[in-house]
Amino acid sequence: MSITHASRLYLRPVAASTVKSKCLSLQLMLRNSLIAPTGKGLYAILPLGQRVVDKLVKIVDTELAAIGAQKAEVPALATADIWQRSERLSAMGQEMFRLKDRHDVEYCLQPTAEEHFTTLVNGLGNVKPAALPIMLYQTSQKFRDEMSPRFGLLRSRQFLMNDLYTFDVDQPSAQITYDRVDAMYRRLFEDILDLRQHVLRVSASSGAMGGDVSHEFHLPNASAEDALLECGHCDSRFKKDEHPGTSECPSCQKALKTIETVEVGHTFQLGDRYSKIFEATSPSNTPYFMCCFGLGITRIIAASIDVLSTASTAMRLPKAIAPFKLAIILPKTDTPNAQFVKSFIPQLTHLPNLNGEILLDDRFDKSIGRRINEANQLGIEHVLVASSHKYVDPTEVQRVEYFKTSAGSASIDKVGALTHGEIFDIFSKV
Amino acid sequence: MSITHASRLYLRPVAASTVKSKCLSLQLMLRNSLIAPTGKGLYAILPLGQRVVDKLVKIVDTELAAIGAQKAEVPALATADIWQRSERLSAMGQEMFRLKDRHDVEYCLQPTAEEHFTTLVNGLGNVKPAALPIMLYQTSQKFRDEMSPRFGLLRSRQFLMNDLYTFDVDQPSAQITYDRVDAMYRRLFEDILDLRQHVLRVSASSGAMGGDVSHEFHLPNASAEDALLECGHCDSRFKKDEHPGTSECPSCQKALKTIETVEVGHTFQLGDRYSKIFEATSPSNTPYFMCCFGLGITRIIAASIDVLSTASTAMRLPKAIAPFKLAIILPKTDTPNAQFVKSFIPQLTHLPNLNGEILLDDRFDKSIGRRINEANQLGIEHVLVASSHKYVDPTEVQRVEYFKTSAGSASIDKVGALTHGEIFDIFSKV
Repeated sequence: MSITHASRLYLRPVAASTVKSKCLSLQLMLRNSLIAPTGKGLYAILPLGQRVVDKLVKIVDTELAAIGAQKAEVPALATADIWQRSERLSAMGQEMFRLKDRHDVEYCLQPTAEEHFTTLVNGLGNVKPAALPIMLYQTSQKFRDEMSPRFGLLRSRQFLMNDLYTFDVDQPSAQITYDRVDAMYRRLFEDILDLRQHVLRVSASSGAMGGDVSHEFHLPNASAEDALLECGHCDSRFKKDEHPGTSECPSCQKALKTIETVEVGHTFQLGDRYSKIFEATSPSNTPYFMCCFGLGITRIIAASIDVLSTASTAMRLPKAIAPFKLAIILPKTDTPNAQFVKSFIPQLTHLPNLNGEILLDDRFDKSIGRRINEANQLGIEHVLVASSHKYVDPTEVQRVEYFKTSAGSASIDKVGALTHGEIFDIFSKV
Repeated sequence: MSITHASRLYLRPVAASTVKSKCLSLQLMLRNSLIAPTGKGLYAILPLGQRVVDKLVKIVDTELAAIGAQKAEVPALATADIWQRSERLSAMGQEMFRLKDRHDVEYCLQPTAEEHFTTLVNGLGNVKPAALPIMLYQTSQKFRDEMSPRFGLLRSRQFLMNDLYTFDVDQPSAQITYDRVDAMYRRLFEDILDLRQHVLRVSASSGAMGGDVSHEFHLPNASAEDALLECGHCDSRFKKDEHPGTSECPSCQKALKTIETVEVGHTFQLGDRYSKIFEATSPSNTPYFMCCFGLGITRIIAASIDVLSTASTAMRLPKAIAPFKLAIILPKTDTPNAQFVKSFIPQLTHLPNLNGEILLDDRFDKSIGRRINEANQLGIEHVLVASSHKYVDPTEVQRVEYFKTSAGSASIDKVGALTHGEIFDIFSKV
């Protein structure tokens, strides 16, 4: 039953004045010690950021296991020849980091892993119907030598991505798999991360590859990395770069509005392109119908911060991945109210929902007000503040000050004072 | 409360005849679908292997949190200049993978991260005593362009490593930190992984860097990657390569015997070498006294298999990281005994110790005998087998056949037949 002491927490905040970017999520992640730059488009994930990353990774693991996907990992380092076989080596151009080993053999750092995963399915032999669809995924570091890395984790050169590859005997069964993953992605964005009012799902063309089905999940973002066209009338939505110059909705001829966004997930029916090349053959002796799916783990975190925060003084994250659920602020001197709070902290840590989720702010060199402000900056939803008053009225039931932060608001709001019973009512449900 | 169905599990066993290596762990990991080769010295971790990796990572996370270390992650990709500043770029020679980005800037793939972590501690400002020692770690993919990658995960070119960096104000306080991590490493190997009878801790010289303290943890291994000299009389132990030609114990002059080993962990007092260069200064205005610590996650798995398995037909892993704790084998036809077993599976999955730990073998195209044999091959400790008999004596209490595997033995042993009560007695404790 672990608890984090703020006095021990590795914090390396960057002064607001030194952050040059206009990107709000980058400012907030730097100022709140979630990340630190280590090079051009490269960031260390600091302990506070790692808590957020680990939570999102765990959620995705749980959801993918629930739909029958199995976790694996292929090396980041791949011989260039498999990328040559899939005819993607030249297509990736300068975006792919390449290197040679000591024997002068060419390698690349993979931005995605269709080649490797299709190879794993080659030679599986006579796969039983019960084992289909084959659904393999990894959550691993990916590499892309971006022309203009910027906006922190929104467009970095190394990033954490979850990529899922599925293999079905034919398109109709692949469609069922595709719909199942699509439903999981919607559940993740809409329900679990509670981004229902923000996330935009859009059908995307598959470009040069032909008529395959593809969808993308976007979040509004002023970085203008991407843009969608939306019809307010019939709710149609298109990728702007696929419809240059279009200003009217093709369905209802109403005016389209542009929404600046960033892509946070994609789903794609690849067909047999890779399974043909890498000879991944189904029990019916045809190449598998393959789909691939991707979630930009680190990008989702940055994009969520952008969409939920309204000021550079108050970071907001989806509740499910916020670094802590509850901050408890203790006064410097051991007041009766502080003793009361300390007496029930062990009980709080035993609530399943709060295990590992409490930040105990024991930084007594900082005033209570300043620490409330810092809890607000970190966007910790629930904050309990023990009183520094030396006197307590023995005829009254002891209460603890309760503050709350919420998405879309930059302030921390005083809700009132809670009794022991009220505290346990609230925190057994969070 | 999840359960894994064997019929769905991604298995891609390699025929014994195609595995050329004499390395037992490599044979077993390939034959049992834990890994698959993707290139020279490069391996995919398959779902069964990923379960083992995830368990070991989680154990190490828990143990490191318990001693106050905080998890982070720095990019694998580092600009060559920070490695130049530490004068390690040329020292690493051809073992380091190097590459250039699209702007012709030189980068390397990091085999370790002293430079990055020391940089993170630079500029922390006035660190409060309560925040010391600073203990930061990561578990991340590391890269080394080995001259002779071999023996699977024992010497691969990409591998998962846990590296911890600690920063203290001076050597005496660093010694306390060092001892704390050393104790955690001993607990991990001796108690948690139950390798008490195998693990060898040895003091190592720090080579060219001078009189700093260093220890290594080794496991006996026929791969002869490394070797120790041991005195059976006074229990002294030395690294063979640091004492070439030595045949007598320096302490008691008795004969030394050679033990072929592989290194699985190291602890090292670095002093101020990196903190001076990267200006990581303690509150007392001197460079921090730094220690670094490493656990070869993927190597520990392979080395454990080598030390616990005695035949290529039966893989053995430490219980704490075996892919499953319990296999349940059901017959093809729904016999009364199968119905009995199925009736209590939900209760079993609710035992905290068995959540996610049960493999339900529903591969009805395989005989029960063959599936018992496969459970033995995977080294699943507990195996329950439902009877295929159509008749059950209504006057008798139903029982289920119970088999066990154990480390150091290649066979699966029939323990007897258990009643419902006996099963729950056993599995509430495993």
